[in-house]
Amino acid sequence: MPTRHLSKDYPWVSSPPIISAPMSGFAGPALAHAVYKADGLGFLGGVPDMAALRTALEDVTGLVTGTRTPASGHTLPIGLGALLFAQKLEEVVALIAEFRPVAVWLFAAHESPDFALWTAEIRKVSANTKIWVQIGSVRGAVHLAQSCKPDVLVLQGADAGGHGGEKGAGIISLIPETLHALQRLELLDNISIVAAGGIADGSGVAAALTLGADGIVMGTRFLAAEETSVHPLYRAAILETEDGGQTTVRAKLFDELAGPNIWPKDFDGRALVAQSYKDHIEGISIAEIRKSHAEAKQTSHLGFDQENRRAAIWAGTGVGLVRERAPAAEIVTEIREAAKVTLRKALTNLE
Amino acid sequence: MPTRHLSKDYPWVSSPPIISAPMSGFAGPALAHAVYKADGLGFLGGVPDMAALRTALEDVTGLVTGTRTPASGHTLPIGLGALLFAQKLEEVVALIAEFRPVAVWLFAAHESPDFALWTAEIRKVSANTKIWVQIGSVRGAVHLAQSCKPDVLVLQGADAGGHGGEKGAGIISLIPETLHALQRLELLDNISIVAAGGIADGSGVAAALTLGADGIVMGTRFLAAEETSVHPLYRAAILETEDGGQTTVRAKLFDELAGPNIWPKDFDGRALVAQSYKDHIEGISIAEIRKSHAEAKQTSHLGFDQENRRAAIWAGTGVGLVRERAPAAEIVTEIREAAKVTLRKALTNLE
Repeated sequence: MPTRHLSKDYPWVSSPPIISAPMSGFAGPALAHAVYKADGLGFLGGVPDMAALRTALEDVTGLVTGTRTPASGHTLPIGLGALLFAQKLEEVVALIAEFRPVAVWLFAAHESPDFALWTAEIRKVSANTKIWVQIGSVRGAVHLAQSCKPDVLVLQGADAGGHGGEKGAGIISLIPETLHALQRLELLDNISIVAAGGIADGSGVAAALTLGADGIVMGTRFLAAEETSVHPLYRAAILETEDGGQTTVRAKLFDELAGPNIWPKDFDGRALVAQSYKDHIEGISIAEIRKSHAEAKQTSHLGFDQENRRAAIWAGTGVGLVRERAPAAEIVTEIREAAKVTLRKALTNLE
Repeated sequence: MPTRHLSKDYPWVSSPPIISAPMSGFAGPALAHAVYKADGLGFLGGVPDMAALRTALEDVTGLVTGTRTPASGHTLPIGLGALLFAQKLEEVVALIAEFRPVAVWLFAAHESPDFALWTAEIRKVSANTKIWVQIGSVRGAVHLAQSCKPDVLVLQGADAGGHGGEKGAGIISLIPETLHALQRLELLDNISIVAAGGIADGSGVAAALTLGADGIVMGTRFLAAEETSVHPLYRAAILETEDGGQTTVRAKLFDELAGPNIWPKDFDGRALVAQSYKDHIEGISIAEIRKSHAEAKQTSHLGFDQENRRAAIWAGTGVGLVRERAPAAEIVTEIREAAKVTLRKALTNLE
């Protein structure tokens, strides 16, 4: 478990590094900034709308520096998510050149070579922007390590909420096997490993560290943060839900609700089990499911209420550990400290 | 993370407690005894054939004590698996009364109240036989804690190989949420928590301990043990397979290959992705899949070969961490020591 370069690249980040996921549509300037201020690493979610993305970058620059226009030579201590299948490389690269985020997190390409292409173009325009690449398989991690030489591999386990590979293991086996494969090929010296998927409390963070992760990503847990752009009914559903392995499910159906699925073919997403999903399992047609979904979106509940839950509410299996709304800084600090306490206790119990 | 009573009930077991799963058909006297001799806790797999089960109990009694007949007042320092849906309570209880295994691991009841019934009957005949109950959900764990008051809850994550609940989370969220729920109801003081699912190396053991487990079960890893009753081609398939999240899958299909599925309704199993499964996904009828399966079983490869893999080869997502055949004692010792080293390193890296 070498100490790699997360602490060098993000010197304000306290150990263990806590990272807020670039949840598209949810992770905006307020969340990214609050995580940054709590000595974590905050990401803006990638969105296809470039005007909205520019505004988000201006806003977070303003929160960090006091002025919305990036100064020359400035590096923004905030990460940026990129959805490769849904964004144009040249448009994103232009924003990166201008705003110089400290990291760009590449996710969900239609074709694997796109990762290397984006990596190369981003590095050309912003040397201080570290490249993060998200993947959920051992083979994929090895391939990306060889083809992109990213600074960070985000290993996403099957417990993760939102989008990821249709097939996958939990981090309990994904991380150790990937580390072993990378080590054998001598690919690990310059790549940090960040864990995602099912981590929602201090013990999960501690577990990910023992598995060999250098940093930890949480998404679902940050849906409870005050600074996250999430509808109150959506957040309420997250806070109410227990027993995440039973009450969430991975399915492509959630990407079909509002129209044809635009995600790359091997992707699906984990969300709360909804009436839409139950209908799908019972063989109800997608046309009818879409109609009911559209109707529910017109109500005051937007399809988020438990009685007629028709909308996708993305959540990982850790959703049952997410119990109350809180400032992001409190979440970061509490979990970081709990992770240390947990590790010490586990060792004390052993010795 | 209270230190509960695993070390009191099984005083020969070294910390952290390493447990070999009661893999039906695989975990016989030689494996259980070898794990016991390595200061772990070995289980015999539960089988419906009572004559075979009696022989296994006699054999392991012979290995432990030197004589196949249990002495009066004797407790056998070996656990016994019980498959509730496939065995008769009175027959199993009679064997428990005679052989007095130190633990009985209850699994897979058709109806949840069966667990409490079996617990009560076993406790009547053998006070030193501790009751272990396996479950894969928070709600199920709370229910069983209340209805059975077991000595041990085995929390099985979705990464596990072989049988388990169709729906489920990995242990990364299952264990912390279950611990929280049990603590809130003050149910945890007399119940130890044992983790299963995806753990196949020292870092997985260390992670499970930080999540709050008192002991760790491995199944897939012990398929590599010399003492396990496993066909060489089956073991070879396990040793060759990498990237367990991509190359294993949970499906009911594996229980349909040899005839109608006899498992309780909410169960399926994780196995290597086989041609049978691919056929199933492509819509080939179960009759045809069964025919191909039966034909493959008649060949010298028994359907285990990679070219025409038709048989179920049960394996968890940790299969890629299982790389070489070894004596069980070596597996237990190596993983136990690696877990300690890993925990210490994780803490050193933090502080």
